[in-house]
Amino acid sequence: MAKRRIYLEDIPLDEARAKLQAALASAGKATPDPGEAVPLEKALGRVTAEPARARMSSPHFHCAAMDGYAVSAAATVSARETQALSLSLGVDAFPVNTGDPLPAETNAVIMIENVNQGDESTILIYAAVAPWQHVRLMGEDMVSTETVLQINHQLRPVDLGALAGCGHQRVKVRRKPRVLIIPTGGELVPLDERPKRGQLIEYNSLILSSQIREAGGEASVCDIVGDDESELRAALTDATASAPDLILMLSGSSAGSRDFSANAITALGELLVHGIAVRPGHPVIIGMASGIPVIGVPGYPVSATLTGELFIVPLIRQWLGLAPPEASIIEAVSTQKITSPIGDDDYVRVALAEIDGQVQATPLQRGAGVITSLVEADGLAHIPRFHEGVDRGGKLKVSLYRSLSLVKQTLLIMGSHDPMLDLLATRFRAGSTDQRLVSVNVGSLGGLIALRRGEAHIAGCHLFHPESATYNIPYLQRYAPNEPVELVTFARREQGLILPPGNPKGITSVAGLSGARYINRQRGAGTRLLFDHLLAQHEISADEIAGYEHEEHTHLAVAAAVADGIGDCGMGLRAAAEAMGLDFIGLTWERFDLAIPRRHLEMEAVQALLDVLRGDAFKRELGAQSGYRSDETGQVVSK
Amino acid sequence: MAKRRIYLEDIPLDEARAKLQAALASAGKATPDPGEAVPLEKALGRVTAEPARARMSSPHFHCAAMDGYAVSAAATVSARETQALSLSLGVDAFPVNTGDPLPAETNAVIMIENVNQGDESTILIYAAVAPWQHVRLMGEDMVSTETVLQINHQLRPVDLGALAGCGHQRVKVRRKPRVLIIPTGGELVPLDERPKRGQLIEYNSLILSSQIREAGGEASVCDIVGDDESELRAALTDATASAPDLILMLSGSSAGSRDFSANAITALGELLVHGIAVRPGHPVIIGMASGIPVIGVPGYPVSATLTGELFIVPLIRQWLGLAPPEASIIEAVSTQKITSPIGDDDYVRVALAEIDGQVQATPLQRGAGVITSLVEADGLAHIPRFHEGVDRGGKLKVSLYRSLSLVKQTLLIMGSHDPMLDLLATRFRAGSTDQRLVSVNVGSLGGLIALRRGEAHIAGCHLFHPESATYNIPYLQRYAPNEPVELVTFARREQGLILPPGNPKGITSVAGLSGARYINRQRGAGTRLLFDHLLAQHEISADEIAGYEHEEHTHLAVAAAVADGIGDCGMGLRAAAEAMGLDFIGLTWERFDLAIPRRHLEMEAVQALLDVLRGDAFKRELGAQSGYRSDETGQVVSK
Repeated sequence: MAKRRIYLEDIPLDEARAKLQAALASAGKATPDPGEAVPLEKALGRVTAEPARARMSSPHFHCAAMDGYAVSAAATVSARETQALSLSLGVDAFPVNTGDPLPAETNAVIMIENVNQGDESTILIYAAVAPWQHVRLMGEDMVSTETVLQINHQLRPVDLGALAGCGHQRVKVRRKPRVLIIPTGGELVPLDERPKRGQLIEYNSLILSSQIREAGGEASVCDIVGDDESELRAALTDATASAPDLILMLSGSSAGSRDFSANAITALGELLVHGIAVRPGHPVIIGMASGIPVIGVPGYPVSATLTGELFIVPLIRQWLGLAPPEASIIEAVSTQKITSPIGDDDYVRVALAEIDGQVQATPLQRGAGVITSLVEADGLAHIPRFHEGVDRGGKLKVSLYRSLSLVKQTLLIMGSHDPMLDLLATRFRAGSTDQRLVSVNVGSLGGLIALRRGEAHIAGCHLFHPESATYNIPYLQRYAPNEPVELVTFARREQGLILPPGNPKGITSVAGLSGARYINRQRGAGTRLLFDHLLAQHEISADEIAGYEHEEHTHLAVAAAVADGIGDCGMGLRAAAEAMGLDFIGLTWERFDLAIPRRHLEMEAVQALLDVLRGDAFKRELGAQSGYRSDETGQVVSK
Repeated sequence: MAKRRIYLEDIPLDEARAKLQAALASAGKATPDPGEAVPLEKALGRVTAEPARARMSSPHFHCAAMDGYAVSAAATVSARETQALSLSLGVDAFPVNTGDPLPAETNAVIMIENVNQGDESTILIYAAVAPWQHVRLMGEDMVSTETVLQINHQLRPVDLGALAGCGHQRVKVRRKPRVLIIPTGGELVPLDERPKRGQLIEYNSLILSSQIREAGGEASVCDIVGDDESELRAALTDATASAPDLILMLSGSSAGSRDFSANAITALGELLVHGIAVRPGHPVIIGMASGIPVIGVPGYPVSATLTGELFIVPLIRQWLGLAPPEASIIEAVSTQKITSPIGDDDYVRVALAEIDGQVQATPLQRGAGVITSLVEADGLAHIPRFHEGVDRGGKLKVSLYRSLSLVKQTLLIMGSHDPMLDLLATRFRAGSTDQRLVSVNVGSLGGLIALRRGEAHIAGCHLFHPESATYNIPYLQRYAPNEPVELVTFARREQGLILPPGNPKGITSVAGLSGARYINRQRGAGTRLLFDHLLAQHEISADEIAGYEHEEHTHLAVAAAVADGIGDCGMGLRAAAEAMGLDFIGLTWERFDLAIPRRHLEMEAVQALLDVLRGDAFKRELGAQSGYRSDETGQVVSK
């Protein structure tokens, strides 16, 4: 095993940035590139490297601003409303369309609406005209030599039009900064290879090259280098030889892999930063190798992505002559207490929704390995260094990842997650591109508590109540007693035992679990309550169930654990078992309802969602899924 | 001349949109396209055409979440802080790096920091560990079959990473809508041709194709079609044969040209809209030809660009499954009274600056032929139908064309415009990419009035006061008496007579202007005051000057008018005369000062600007310009 570096000397974010800037300045690389000339058709989004001046005036001749007749103003002075003046066509008056050049000796245009035809060769006018009336003077828009666009300006469609209009075919723009990306890590395989056990698909290079392209740079990705220090040093040497503007070394996941990068940089130049007090993202490395800046990017995808946002994108923009990208920042209320390490700049992915007029932020899972937490995030809350976090109900500053209007049109379902809620979300979004349904899985009871706290628009639940032999209603009365709620059925769905293919242990009911490893669901999950109820029916105690304490949070996670041989049996949906190719023994058809507080029923988005839910198309699609029945879907449950 | 349609039946914007949508719906073209599969490397910015589900779990095996040793939790129960437990390497404990798969029969990882080496083949641990401690469970990020991305989602770098991470190499995205653009107009030439008198460069197709590409579509531009109805009909027939999603017919500037488009559409289908109550942009045409939507785009570039923003971009996004683009809208105070036609949706280009904590909007020139008014606009104020406009000081809703932070970092110079202020702006922006200097030309006196009203940060002026033989100070005392102002010299510059090449009329001073056509500057311009002063010196009355009433607004415009033979002489800068290749007779070296209210002197941006102004580099560059001296540049004028 490689020698390991036990801890990193983390320095604050600002200090790390300053060190990089100082190194760039002393290498003469802190300022924008001088630029290259590109055709206007290819210049959209590029940045001007110098001011653009008009090569010709626009218009470059005096021209008619209206359809009508060009005249000499002096020849019209005697015209009166009561005394028409006759002008000879081709002598005193010349028909012109808008844009036509003024004929010689004319200096005004009379609109066609203000003229009557005289005989075949004359027109009649009824008012004198002032010189230059309805004339676009030469240079009205741009005068030759004047500055049309400033330096460091990102070209928009209209800018390209203006440049063309004053005689340009090309424009001098900043060269695109070139970035070379070296992925490292013995466990990684490229994304077109199927990974074996112990191998991971290398996709950080895809994220970072996309960030770089989006920022206006060019990225090329080298072959993956294994965990071999001399190979890595050779790869870095090769990279510097092609003289890119920036080299990224993407570390594998282990600490040893990071040390290889650091050593390779040190061998070719100077290591400036080895660890930054940012969470997630700590193990960022910055150095200069053969005069070229090198950034060592951490291996976990969330850390890698944030390193791109915090360091790499601003650097690309600096070389393009642009200020760092500007996020829309809003203030939101945290639905949870967030604890932050006091020495770090802490970035927390959050889901956002507007509930009762207040934008609420719910922190998402904080593991740096969970890329879906970034995919799902509506924004990034920044808890600065020297702050300890916020309490529940405290204010957070959140940079938006999605538009505020989409956030405000987001319906948030909390509670139990049913995979078919994704189908509902798809149908909802397909029909209304400015609205969105997001579901956060906190279990059935968690959803009811979220409703009580005003943290969700809707709760999804499937809570069986043995005493009354009903679903959900008694729990609503207990957990949200003061909230008038409408209960709308989502589906009947089949719950049962999820078993390995062929059911090797021959389990047919909860009575047959002794000697088997069970995979349980988390506290508050409806499926766990159902299991407990079935145990009670069979007079089995939880102590007798091996694995009762092993908790998973979704049906699919239970199925995955059975598929992977971690357990011999779990409880969940037929759909989850079939998705993983597992055996299934059905035990009950339970009812999954949506609990909607009456004050949210009036929302346009809620009404639109109910329309989709009750539509024949959705009910047909839902009913066709294995383990689902949709005959009660959309019905209001009477209490 | 073609038959003319005198007026158009304008319908409201909403009604026009509804007619288009109804026609699209009945042609089965109102909904997004089903999509095509593209490689992830090419999918950035594309829009998902279906939900994306995980093809494999991520991670797809249980793996170490820390560097350390994999163990079976059950084997560690006897470890205590006071009683180390020894584990045999390769038997009870296996070294693992982060990301490594857990060896068989292990279910937890002990961090390397919590372990001591025993002998060569053992480690010592000091605490029991729970099952699955420091283990990333299979599917922690994504479980096979779960929904990772919803439909109608525009792909970001992180989304591409997530798709790769769960086994995708391609993603199904919306096909790019294809738009065919037919420019029409006999006066137009392509942008790589030098236009003759009477010809204009056709650049609306460049603006519109760029807007379409930016929105996610594909645009191709046909050859220009002249003002010939049968040719145009043939071009439209050809266009429909290639079955694009949308055809744009770009009208020439005349009303006749628009009728040709309308007739061609009618011949192949149905004309739905002929004129919309929108300013600028009235003459928009909408129809269906052979089942394909056709939009006739007005010829004036501002109208064409707004038609793109209002109709075409939203349509492209609709076909991509995206909501219309969302502008940032702010409230600003209008510095001028704006009158709007009551029946129209009126869109007014405005310049924005924050002065004394208030974002102020100054309307720019409203001619639809002036593309630079859109280039310079910081935003677009919308005055809805049934509103008559706003008074000076009234509130405007402005959609931003630039970021609010750049608007807030904009220094606004009003007053006389000197071309070298553009040079200052270039040097200022080159040095600080998040700040900007904008100058608005309202003449020297206009600038002082703007200062008094608090509508500018700085005024530029060169007002000679004959009685005191000084510049600017007496005027400041008169026009902004209560405003403590610092006067900083910008430059000395040479004013004189601008004359045609070779000076055919032999003019050598203002005394020699009789019989010549003079080009004057507007009221309030310092150059006009200088001319009036010189006339008075020579005891010449304004009546004796032919053309005294012909007003131009800039030095370059005066020079252009002389170059084009509209006048025989004008007064202005040597620099303007030389830029146009004209003769020049110098009369005086006047002083151009910047008047800066003391309360603005503290602004960071003002200090940064003064640093540039006083820097050797800028003074050297300014002094090297013909007709400029920079020895007093940056000096504070003592009063």
